[in-house]
Amino acid sequence: MRIFGIDPGSARTGYGCVDTDGRRHRFVACGAIVPPAGASLADRLHYIHDGLGRLLARHRPEVAAVENVFHARNVRSALVLGHARGVAVLAAVEAGLPVVEYTPAEVKLGVTGYGRADKRQLQQMIALLLGLDRPPTPHDAADALALAICHAHARPSRPVGGRPPLRLRSWRHARLADLGRRQAP
Amino acid sequence: MRIFGIDPGSARTGYGCVDTDGRRHRFVACGAIVPPAGASLADRLHYIHDGLGRLLARHRPEVAAVENVFHARNVRSALVLGHARGVAVLAAVEAGLPVVEYTPAEVKLGVTGYGRADKRQLQQMIALLLGLDRPPTPHDAADALALAICHAHARPSRPVGGRPPLRLRSWRHARLADLGRRQAP
Repeated sequence: MRIFGIDPGSARTGYGCVDTDGRRHRFVACGAIVPPAGASLADRLHYIHDGLGRLLARHRPEVAAVENVFHARNVRSALVLGHARGVAVLAAVEAGLPVVEYTPAEVKLGVTGYGRADKRQLQQMIALLLGLDRPPTPHDAADALALAICHAHARPSRPVGGRPPLRLRSWRHARLADLGRRQAP
Repeated sequence: MRIFGIDPGSARTGYGCVDTDGRRHRFVACGAIVPPAGASLADRLHYIHDGLGRLLARHRPEVAAVENVFHARNVRSALVLGHARGVAVLAAVEAGLPVVEYTPAEVKLGVTGYGRADKRQLQQMIALLLGLDRPPTPHDAADALALAICHAHARPSRPVGGRPPLRLRSWRHARLADLGRRQAP
């Protein structure tokens, strides 16, 4: 199964694509969509939606995993994040994909087996699971890969709208999934 | 000039379309896009985006006016509203439209001349300005028409991203703009 993780943001939207059989994972692609500096919010949304649409058409995943957010600095920043998340989810639905969502704590738990893992531990585990020589960059891309791996470990789950029940297989089954490309671009 | 007002919401998205010369306004269309009850957020976003795309293709406005929000019950509701607003703004940009935004207070001021007008006063003024026999329904459609009229009175303004400077012509110049269709559908 091919999973496409998306970490939406109006300034940077990370993506990470992974092939998996549920235990072993293969790195496919990762990166960040970065709208031009100074672009209006409207133009940034268009840029993100268009970029994701192209990536989904190129990589043809079977499911999209998006970060679920419950906290934000304030209402204004939640609103802006919501815009980016809205067009990201839309791009996935338009590509015919089911969309699942995980909170940051669920991602940490799903990837490292520990819900309070720090950023560095998470990134090192991603590199280990995907057989990469070093943690993927930029950090938005690493977060998106983590979402994809979380979903690989956590199926079955529910589509956006309900909280997915997290049925974890232990990450231990998945370590050193050295099936594929070793180096993030 | 033809202006398309949008009042986004994940459960209901109001729209209202108005022709204007800046003083006199003509009602073109209004209504609400209501995704099926029980649909997932992802499917609702798709439904709203698709519905707005069709309406914009049918009515071919020159500009879209969207409500600007700074307050929400909480971060979660701001996030959900942001999703709907994101796909609404995207639909407008995809239709090649500039997108302007106004706060609820700016809309009240722009339509009634009084920033603290209540809902009923606002709706009555919309009916008066558009030559309708009674206030348009549903309320989301009325709010969207108010956005369109606000922009008609307020030009020039800036696109989404910056706050538009509100240059009001008095609503008095616009009353009884009895140019067109008298009855909202």
